[in-house]
Amino acid sequence: MNIQNKLDPQLVLHRIHDLISRHEIERKLALAQTGEKQEVIESLLARQHQNDIHKALTHLHYADIADLLEGLPLEERLFIWNMVNSDIDGRVLLEVSPSVRESLLTHLKHDELIAISTQLTSDELADITPYLKPEDVHEIINALDEQARREYENAHLYLDSQIGSVMDFDFLKVRGDVSCKVVFRYLRRFEELPEHADKIFVVDEYNTLLGVLPIRKLLTSNTRDMVRDLMNPDVFTFHPTDDLEEVANAFERYDLITAPVLDNKHRLIGRITINEMVNVMRHAGAEDMLSLAGVSIMEELFSPVWQAFKSRCLWLMINLCTAFIASRVIGAFEESISKIVALAALMPIVAGIGGNAGNQTITMLVRAMGQQQFSWQQIRRLLIKELSIAMINGILWGSTLAVITTLLYHNAMLGFVMLMAMTLNLLLAAFMGVMIPAVMQKLNRDPALGSSVLITACTDSGGFFIFLGLASLMLL
Amino acid sequence: MNIQNKLDPQLVLHRIHDLISRHEIERKLALAQTGEKQEVIESLLARQHQNDIHKALTHLHYADIADLLEGLPLEERLFIWNMVNSDIDGRVLLEVSPSVRESLLTHLKHDELIAISTQLTSDELADITPYLKPEDVHEIINALDEQARREYENAHLYLDSQIGSVMDFDFLKVRGDVSCKVVFRYLRRFEELPEHADKIFVVDEYNTLLGVLPIRKLLTSNTRDMVRDLMNPDVFTFHPTDDLEEVANAFERYDLITAPVLDNKHRLIGRITINEMVNVMRHAGAEDMLSLAGVSIMEELFSPVWQAFKSRCLWLMINLCTAFIASRVIGAFEESISKIVALAALMPIVAGIGGNAGNQTITMLVRAMGQQQFSWQQIRRLLIKELSIAMINGILWGSTLAVITTLLYHNAMLGFVMLMAMTLNLLLAAFMGVMIPAVMQKLNRDPALGSSVLITACTDSGGFFIFLGLASLMLL
Repeated sequence: MNIQNKLDPQLVLHRIHDLISRHEIERKLALAQTGEKQEVIESLLARQHQNDIHKALTHLHYADIADLLEGLPLEERLFIWNMVNSDIDGRVLLEVSPSVRESLLTHLKHDELIAISTQLTSDELADITPYLKPEDVHEIINALDEQARREYENAHLYLDSQIGSVMDFDFLKVRGDVSCKVVFRYLRRFEELPEHADKIFVVDEYNTLLGVLPIRKLLTSNTRDMVRDLMNPDVFTFHPTDDLEEVANAFERYDLITAPVLDNKHRLIGRITINEMVNVMRHAGAEDMLSLAGVSIMEELFSPVWQAFKSRCLWLMINLCTAFIASRVIGAFEESISKIVALAALMPIVAGIGGNAGNQTITMLVRAMGQQQFSWQQIRRLLIKELSIAMINGILWGSTLAVITTLLYHNAMLGFVMLMAMTLNLLLAAFMGVMIPAVMQKLNRDPALGSSVLITACTDSGGFFIFLGLASLMLL
Repeated sequence: MNIQNKLDPQLVLHRIHDLISRHEIERKLALAQTGEKQEVIESLLARQHQNDIHKALTHLHYADIADLLEGLPLEERLFIWNMVNSDIDGRVLLEVSPSVRESLLTHLKHDELIAISTQLTSDELADITPYLKPEDVHEIINALDEQARREYENAHLYLDSQIGSVMDFDFLKVRGDVSCKVVFRYLRRFEELPEHADKIFVVDEYNTLLGVLPIRKLLTSNTRDMVRDLMNPDVFTFHPTDDLEEVANAFERYDLITAPVLDNKHRLIGRITINEMVNVMRHAGAEDMLSLAGVSIMEELFSPVWQAFKSRCLWLMINLCTAFIASRVIGAFEESISKIVALAALMPIVAGIGGNAGNQTITMLVRAMGQQQFSWQQIRRLLIKELSIAMINGILWGSTLAVITTLLYHNAMLGFVMLMAMTLNLLLAAFMGVMIPAVMQKLNRDPALGSSVLITACTDSGGFFIFLGLASLMLL
């Protein structure tokens, strides 16, 4: 990727990382000096590095700066943040993730904060005010005009999971009973059109949406054509309480760039754009993956140790409990193990392969659910598919291991127990791998959250029980 | 979500699923009848259901139909596919995933195929011809005009992972030395402008890109303004061999809707649009998740059992090998276990918690890599963070388990071994959890692929070795 007439952002980023690490090393060397001399060296160094970094930063898009800041530990993040040009620091703030945004905002001086707030639109302001002191928020809100304040308050009416929280108010609208000539004249009066404006919303005198006039259509129209005759009355519209992920899916599915948001009376109140939806999609994909592993979506690469610990603590603890239960299952068979010690060596194979296969099924299903391809009506058919795969795998790998076990321990019966236990545990894994996410979805819970820990619990305890139980019955 | 003046697609989809399952049930009832009577009932049923389903399908967007087809098993998929209106079946084909596309194309008659091919542009054709018979492809290509054939051949020059494979040729371009009035006249001559056209590419007489004129800017311009003066010379441009995922990241980062593709001499050869990039993003997110679990990205919810088996087979087999190695580690300590059977019950806890923690670290890192936030220069710092978390977890949960073990087995030394082993295995999990994806990335391999199986292998074998080894040293 290139920006014509500019430097490659990857190269610039690399250079900044280099400058940061050199800065750190040289500062440490300076610290080895003593007293006044140290101070002189340090201040010289700091000034030189700041100059170099500042120069490099001017070559970067605000989104690149945001990424750079997100990938840095706190101290260096603030060091760079202080060097960002003040005319784009508002953009950078909107671009970074919530936890990084918080860390940057708490280190801004009052004046800088007020200066930034004047660069932002009312819906953008609503994204940063939750992280500010009440008195600062009060001052910022008071500076808004009436329309902007109404919009600002509007943005606070909705949950973070609802599209009302990301809609903007920067749209074009015209009445249906005007000609294209009038529309062209109306557009020309703007100093700058809203970003991503691919269509003009057509409303009646009560602000009820009648249709949309795509800019593409306007440009090929005759200036005497009436908007009403040109407009498209079939419009994808959304309600501010609609779910973010569902709307993002609709944007992907129907190739939308912008879409109108209507209230219950079909009156136009806002607009959703593709760039907000792209963020949602990226976030949703990552969230499924992190949830499956039991990591909080709020954790960043360089979250402080304490925060990262908390983010993973819950599921690790649950895992510990389920592992303890599995351990007690083994404990119940201690007598069998003391008679045939080989059981202790073989049992983790049965449990492990079940956990692995179960996780494959769950991941498959979570992905299909994310793309809204799964409906409860299909569950019987899905169970048949997964149980069939489990059966094939069980017989194939079970037989393989049965042969190896027989050769290793000179005990054909032990091999047979291995085959039976593996097949049964794989069937259990397939069944639970379908049922866990399906039931979660039925109960309106996130199907990814903790599914992986749950399936492992089933296949561990289940696997140990099946294997040791069969062995006790057939070998003792 | 609503489409004004149309039915809610979710309701329509639900109705079609209902119709399909009712069709299946009633057909089975008919099969219970005998001879001629059965045939009559079946044909009546089929006709009535087809009518109902056909009617419901007309209410759906082609993207919804594509989703419906993807979520259905083969037989029912073809049943529905035969009822899709012929004027949108080309769109549906482009929308479905490759493996579903293949299943639909192989069931098309020659005439239907040729009819569909005439609906598609040259770059869209390139997406479906790999699944066709050579003689059909030959006939389709021969029907193209010269320009379209060049474009078609162009699309075949690039790998599926390069943006050349998804660029289109449907763009607007003007010379820099004309006025906006001329541009407006040029646009008005189109019957329909290219989809998502948010900017006009500005070129010189050699087709070299000079800049872009955003439509937003054109609409607010004075008709006498020259394109050269209005255009933006800083353009994000791409090369046809650029990596799809990197370009998708750039689209997300810089909020792009369309971008020009240039050859080595900076000549304009094609265009990339956001809707292709949205598909890439969705795909990339899902791919990471599936790769971590060891499932192939090609597997669909209702892939035939045999395909699904193959998709998961490799990693299951690798997992079996690593589980076998872990089993041999235990086997080496059989003597210790036969003396203290409690070791057999406790060892899976140590291994399990390590695997869980390691997967948390890997997932975190794979996600950061997907967003290009990780660079090798940061590895030392990341290791410090992860090892610190492991230390806290080890001491916290290790002590908890040490107390429980001591109480349960009346053996304080066994409790102490538990604490030591858990802490050491968590440290191992943290170290390998960082190193596995980092080294994979360094070697230009997909950091997600199989990482989960690898870390589990380390923490299983490692966990058993640490725990049983310590126990043998300290307790026997």
